[in-house]
Amino acid sequence: MSDPLITLTTDFGDASPYVAAMKGVILGVNPSVRLIDLTHQIPPQDIRYADYFLATALSYFPSGTLHVIVVDPGVGGERALLYAEVAGQRVLAPDNGCLTTLLATVGPPSVVRHVRDPRFWRSSISSTFHGRDIFAPVAGHLSKGIDPAELGPLFTGWVALKTSVPRTTKNGIVGEVVFIDSFGNLISNIPGRMVRQQPNLLRIGRRSFKQFAWVHSYAEVKPGQLAALISSDGKLEVAVVQGNAARRLHARVGTPLAVGFAR
Amino acid sequence: MSDPLITLTTDFGDASPYVAAMKGVILGVNPSVRLIDLTHQIPPQDIRYADYFLATALSYFPSGTLHVIVVDPGVGGERALLYAEVAGQRVLAPDNGCLTTLLATVGPPSVVRHVRDPRFWRSSISSTFHGRDIFAPVAGHLSKGIDPAELGPLFTGWVALKTSVPRTTKNGIVGEVVFIDSFGNLISNIPGRMVRQQPNLLRIGRRSFKQFAWVHSYAEVKPGQLAALISSDGKLEVAVVQGNAARRLHARVGTPLAVGFAR
Amino acid sequence: MSDPLITLTTDFGDASPYVAAMKGVILGVNPSVRLIDLTHQIPPQDIRYADYFLATALSYFPSGTLHVIVVDPGVGGERALLYAEVAGQRVLAPDNGCLTTLLATVGPPSVVRHVRDPRFWRSSISSTFHGRDIFAPVAGHLSKGIDPAELGPLFTGWVALKTSVPRTTKNGIVGEVVFIDSFGNLISNIPGRMVRQQPNLLRIGRRSFKQFAWVHSYAEVKPGQLAALISSDGKLEVAVVQGNAARRLHARVGTPLAVGFAR
Repeated sequence: MSDPLITLTTDFGDASPYVAAMKGVILGVNPSVRLIDLTHQIPPQDIRYADYFLATALSYFPSGTLHVIVVDPGVGGERALLYAEVAGQRVLAPDNGCLTTLLATVGPPSVVRHVRDPRFWRSSISSTFHGRDIFAPVAGHLSKGIDPAELGPLFTGWVALKTSVPRTTKNGIVGEVVFIDSFGNLISNIPGRMVRQQPNLLRIGRRSFKQFAWVHSYAEVKPGQLAALISSDGKLEVAVVQGNAARRLHARVGTPLAVGFAR
Repeated sequence: MSDPLITLTTDFGDASPYVAAMKGVILGVNPSVRLIDLTHQIPPQDIRYADYFLATALSYFPSGTLHVIVVDPGVGGERALLYAEVAGQRVLAPDNGCLTTLLATVGPPSVVRHVRDPRFWRSSISSTFHGRDIFAPVAGHLSKGIDPAELGPLFTGWVALKTSVPRTTKNGIVGEVVFIDSFGNLISNIPGRMVRQQPNLLRIGRRSFKQFAWVHSYAEVKPGQLAALISSDGKLEVAVVQGNAARRLHARVGTPLAVGFAR
Repeated sequence: MSDPLITLTTDFGDASPYVAAMKGVILGVNPSVRLIDLTHQIPPQDIRYADYFLATALSYFPSGTLHVIVVDPGVGGERALLYAEVAGQRVLAPDNGCLTTLLATVGPPSVVRHVRDPRFWRSSISSTFHGRDIFAPVAGHLSKGIDPAELGPLFTGWVALKTSVPRTTKNGIVGEVVFIDSFGNLISNIPGRMVRQQPNLLRIGRRSFKQFAWVHSYAEVKPGQLAALISSDGKLEVAVVQGNAARRLHARVGTPLAVGFAR
């Protein structure tokens, strides 16, 4: 059997000694763990970004993989620390909404626990760095096979972010940008299956476009051209091929994004 | 025997859920793989940067290491996906020129294949993310020992980038900047062995310099001083010691760089 | 027993082929090594940042972990290459002060050696990239169990950075900012134990503040509020909750930071 896998997702930034400290603590508890960095570049305290990131990435990992999420603006306050088992994945995360989509899209989790038994924590707990003092040692102990029930009691009523739902209008579908990837592509919350015909109008923020390509892949259009397509996660996406749609269209997460089917 | 090694090189950026998804898919196919990040900061769609990066880095890995390269502006289009065995390294990369120098400098590859048998792919293939849907599962299966011949037929006529060749003039050597490292050092395409005597003139873009140090290492000159030397990869390099030559000299990849030996 | 661990800390940047080359060389010497990236984003040649980073992070790793540090502006010059055993950790680093705090805070190291026997180096040594040509192969050989005494003789008189010591004044404590984390939090050199009462004055650079919260955790105050607290490493810290204190207060490493207890 392979050594246990623990993935790390934080908003600490890649220059941070905090990530390194967490790695040290985990390996200190279980030196045989295999650590996988998912990202340390979640924008600082951006729970919504973390939510999208986790929902997009975690389900691909082998069953039983343990994912440690430290995007934790509420550290030291009242927020609970959660252990969740969701569709085969195991997750340690603060209860601040960063698991909203993950918990919602793959069905109800089989187990959510409130991590509160200090037996598996570091002996001295800071008020500002639970990633090192609680998440990391708990992850190490879980990887050694402790029963998750030892972490704390079952938990319900976790925090969920408000998510906007796309709606169908007389002439189209109105949604919003929910993620902007590193290429500047705009990923919307409009599922591809809602787009039953080829749109001939695109609205981003207050601007409307009739000139755009409706394509299957970026390769179909020339560099610099505006294109709409279904993303690799099955959502309506707007791209400027070999350019940056977010910058060109001044779009952000939350910017309204709509398609129209006007005759 | 150690667990198999797979390295990852992409232009997805370190904040991207796409990298995480690829890691999940690879480990889903072969949970015992050891993943090594080379970089996810290839500038978006910058095939030339990828080409330099791969030629500089891959040859140091142990024989049989599998390298997955996803810098793929043509994803979803006609470009082939290649599997290459080059001087002991194994590479999965889009056929867009990103292997130009690697294939050229270490001699002809023993094997290049056109990866096109969908047996080893994910069951559903997006048009925009072959890294997750094709490269990753194929890498996982290769790491489990499948015969590369199963991936697809032998392939020739892969894409090669045009590369500029430095030329000797009456009074010197004229080349260009091919890479700028994170310190701002300018790496040229002029091999150190062409520089048979100490140059006394340096030309970068349209500016000429007589005042510069010709050194073996940065430590020989004072901070802020302009220096020319032979790089760690044996090419003529221009540096501003403890400064940033690219910024100070307004140089980019492609900027002409020449040395002169005027009497 | 688990495969040996080697961590990597450099100022090469995450887009650098130099990091990848080092990984290749290490694995080329010992293919069973487990590589852990600590950071490659130490600001270029910033020895002081490296010093803080290493002192903050290394001690958490399991005993015997080998840490390779390449922040090396003096490469190719007279600076020695050190092998140190410090409180159970093993470190390869240039002798330029980057180990100052680590060597000082955890007691005298049991062993420091001058790495100078070329038997364990690459056969050809560049003048500008000892990370690849010396550090990496030496790390590989150490991970295979060679006696550190084979690397070179015992060494004393290593370089130490000047560090500023906080001082108590009539009405408070005067120190300075020694680290700014990715959230913009200002970490000072003032140990929490020096702060025996609640301060009512905060001075950062030339600006004084009476309006700030004295808290245990960020969660106690509203977003945007100025707060002082004891950091996760036991130092006086100044934060703008869910904001960026460094940017708002124009503070840098070295900026004077003081607390007052005026009646």
